[in-house]
Amino acid sequence: MNDLSTDPICALATASGMGAIAVIRVSGKGSKALVSKAFSKDLTALPSHTVHLGWMLGANGDRLDEVLATLFDHGKSFTGEESVELACHGSTFIQQLLLQRLAELGCRLAEPGEFTKRAFLNGRLDLSQAEAVADLIAAQSKQAHQVALQQLRGRFSSELQQLREQLIQFAALIELELDFGEEDVEFADRTALKLLVAEVLKMVRRLAASFELGNAIKNGVPVAIVGAPNTGKSTLLNQLLGEDRAIVSDIAGTTRDVIEEVLNIEGIQFRLIDTAGIRETTETIEALGIERSQQKIEQAKIVLCLTDASDSANFTETTAWVTSLKTLHPDKYILLVQNKADLKAASINEASTAFDLQMSALTGNGVAELKAKLVALVLGDYNVQDETIVSNARHQAALLQTAAALERAQEGLYGHTTADFIAMDIREAMRQLGHITGQIDVDTDILGAIFSKFCIGK
Amino acid sequence: MNDLSTDPICALATASGMGAIAVIRVSGKGSKALVSKAFSKDLTALPSHTVHLGWMLGANGDRLDEVLATLFDHGKSFTGEESVELACHGSTFIQQLLLQRLAELGCRLAEPGEFTKRAFLNGRLDLSQAEAVADLIAAQSKQAHQVALQQLRGRFSSELQQLREQLIQFAALIELELDFGEEDVEFADRTALKLLVAEVLKMVRRLAASFELGNAIKNGVPVAIVGAPNTGKSTLLNQLLGEDRAIVSDIAGTTRDVIEEVLNIEGIQFRLIDTAGIRETTETIEALGIERSQQKIEQAKIVLCLTDASDSANFTETTAWVTSLKTLHPDKYILLVQNKADLKAASINEASTAFDLQMSALTGNGVAELKAKLVALVLGDYNVQDETIVSNARHQAALLQTAAALERAQEGLYGHTTADFIAMDIREAMRQLGHITGQIDVDTDILGAIFSKFCIGK
Repeated sequence: MNDLSTDPICALATASGMGAIAVIRVSGKGSKALVSKAFSKDLTALPSHTVHLGWMLGANGDRLDEVLATLFDHGKSFTGEESVELACHGSTFIQQLLLQRLAELGCRLAEPGEFTKRAFLNGRLDLSQAEAVADLIAAQSKQAHQVALQQLRGRFSSELQQLREQLIQFAALIELELDFGEEDVEFADRTALKLLVAEVLKMVRRLAASFELGNAIKNGVPVAIVGAPNTGKSTLLNQLLGEDRAIVSDIAGTTRDVIEEVLNIEGIQFRLIDTAGIRETTETIEALGIERSQQKIEQAKIVLCLTDASDSANFTETTAWVTSLKTLHPDKYILLVQNKADLKAASINEASTAFDLQMSALTGNGVAELKAKLVALVLGDYNVQDETIVSNARHQAALLQTAAALERAQEGLYGHTTADFIAMDIREAMRQLGHITGQIDVDTDILGAIFSKFCIGK
Repeated sequence: MNDLSTDPICALATASGMGAIAVIRVSGKGSKALVSKAFSKDLTALPSHTVHLGWMLGANGDRLDEVLATLFDHGKSFTGEESVELACHGSTFIQQLLLQRLAELGCRLAEPGEFTKRAFLNGRLDLSQAEAVADLIAAQSKQAHQVALQQLRGRFSSELQQLREQLIQFAALIELELDFGEEDVEFADRTALKLLVAEVLKMVRRLAASFELGNAIKNGVPVAIVGAPNTGKSTLLNQLLGEDRAIVSDIAGTTRDVIEEVLNIEGIQFRLIDTAGIRETTETIEALGIERSQQKIEQAKIVLCLTDASDSANFTETTAWVTSLKTLHPDKYILLVQNKADLKAASINEASTAFDLQMSALTGNGVAELKAKLVALVLGDYNVQDETIVSNARHQAALLQTAAALERAQEGLYGHTTADFIAMDIREAMRQLGHITGQIDVDTDILGAIFSKFCIGK
């Protein structure tokens, strides 16, 4: 926290490009006075949270644009600093013109994330909340939005605080022993300590494990649809995309790679890998298209292996393949999906328990169940509404470090290690938890890395 | 003005896409109450021009986003209506989410230009000022910005008002005659009337003629560089672009067609046509490349014909060509530019007066003069700072109609037409001027056409 610069900074806060209006944000000591030098009235004595119509003026007093200036006093703004927001006409020309004018007056163009960084350094947000701001802006699905919003609201921070408090309690007990160390007395009730550590460890592990879900929610879940020709991959794809084409594709200005189709089910984005391949009509003759499927499976988290229920040869082959796939990729969800269930061959009826799902892509029967299954696989036993989901790799890393330290402490308790070693591990666990919120000093380089991922103007 | 709907409308007012923040504008009767239904506090009794931090809430009371709500009372907003502006986190997802929430509450998505249309219908802006809003947002150069800004500030409107007042004075005098028509008396001093009409006509003609400049400023000036191979077209292009590459190309998010290079000189955009052709190294052998030049010349307003001063054969040929071009295209500026002036052949020294410009694209000598010449050609004898420049084709059309009516009135005065015919022409002139500002009822279809060109959210 050695970067406490308060010089006025400015940046375009709204999306780049032309709009009806654009907002330029100015923050730092003396912002009101600085803007007033180029404004048609003096803003310095006007109260916080008020809006003033006026003209931005050039060096010669020429009128540059009519703007609305919104004032925020020190301690009452997003950054915690004195701030002015200028809503101007939304041409890129005017945006540049006003930023140039502010630069003339000594206002520096903000670095990426610098406003949020200042909000953190001024104690307006803790570090995990600041990171949630970036996630919130980037959120493209309901669940991603939900996870970021809850993190911004501080639920994660307060849970971490509770865990830290439990550890502080532990540390207090164990360090009491240290003071009397030479007397070789065990003041603390080791049974209670064991329970406490086990409880905290369980919660930390669950938080760390939620990262798999959090990451899936944040970045979408890659799904591959594989299977032999004529098993109905293309029909299934169309059924899935029919109603649930991702909301992002409907929003102007959102750029998307065209190599994937995005499916939004219950607010979770599923990215269907290499659908172009599926759509091709000239498929290879090779029975399962294994060669080509291999790469898609590598990229996927969930693999839908389609088999044709009307074809018992295909059934036998696919079942064997899926069994080997499951062994090969224990970290992926491999689903054996029986398609054309309405035309099922009599010979394979009894073996249908081997299927994860039965459906008919053509009639749509079973598609709802497939979607529900996809969502269930991603969510696991987590409840996104009521439970904290970790979606940031930095947080997961710190949680894993915390868990490792707690495991050492636990071993120590059972192995009758001396209290000073146990205390060291507990302190390490607390330090790791503190890193997440920035309560414990975070390295300037790490701060730099966190905020440089933000967009300019935030 | 039969479209006086005041139902609440909403739209994204900032550029589409992701930004740190986005602003959603709500305007119409009961906007504060409407937003309050989905806001964490009641905004209805709070004063105009104040800003309030709070949460936008879903139908179930779930928190959608933390926003800043800015309030504007009836008569004090851009539209003249009660308005609320919501500054939310800038993800496209949140933008959609909040717009959907407002729609649930009965707020209609605004049509393009509907906010500005309401500002016009509520008398906050006249029609030419409303049109200036769209121009201001689209402005990409200093001069285009200047022209739009002055129109928005109402200079054009007040000039039109003065002209109308002069015509009202005229009409009053001439209509006095009508009342005493049967007595065949000429009350009005016909000499004074002739002077008055001549004066107004001169001003209207100058305004109408300024459209050529206004249009050039608004849309850029197409410039063609033509000439035989090796006359230095490519070198000149690089000299011109070297320092003055258009500011728009540096702004993220601005999309540009790549078929033209844009040059910004003294705030005017010059669009260099088909520069790709110039950059090609394999030029046709044909001496002047006339075939290929023809198309470029058709598209251009200014044509720079380069000749090689070190080559007297090229000089003779080019001079003849330019002479024919000037005859063929009296509406274009055709400049004979003598390049490689530092290597000038002795034989053509005496004929150098035939050139519009002398320069050396290689050394850069004369390039500043060329730029000054380009600017001078565009500006003509107009002064953009101190004079009204018409940049809207609708305004020009109305001015030309005004001029035609005034010319008929003038003819009538000299031809001793009866006063009732003259009065009719004067009334027509006033009506046409009134159309520009919308003082005279403008057809709903025309209003629709004007505002449909706006972006959504303005």
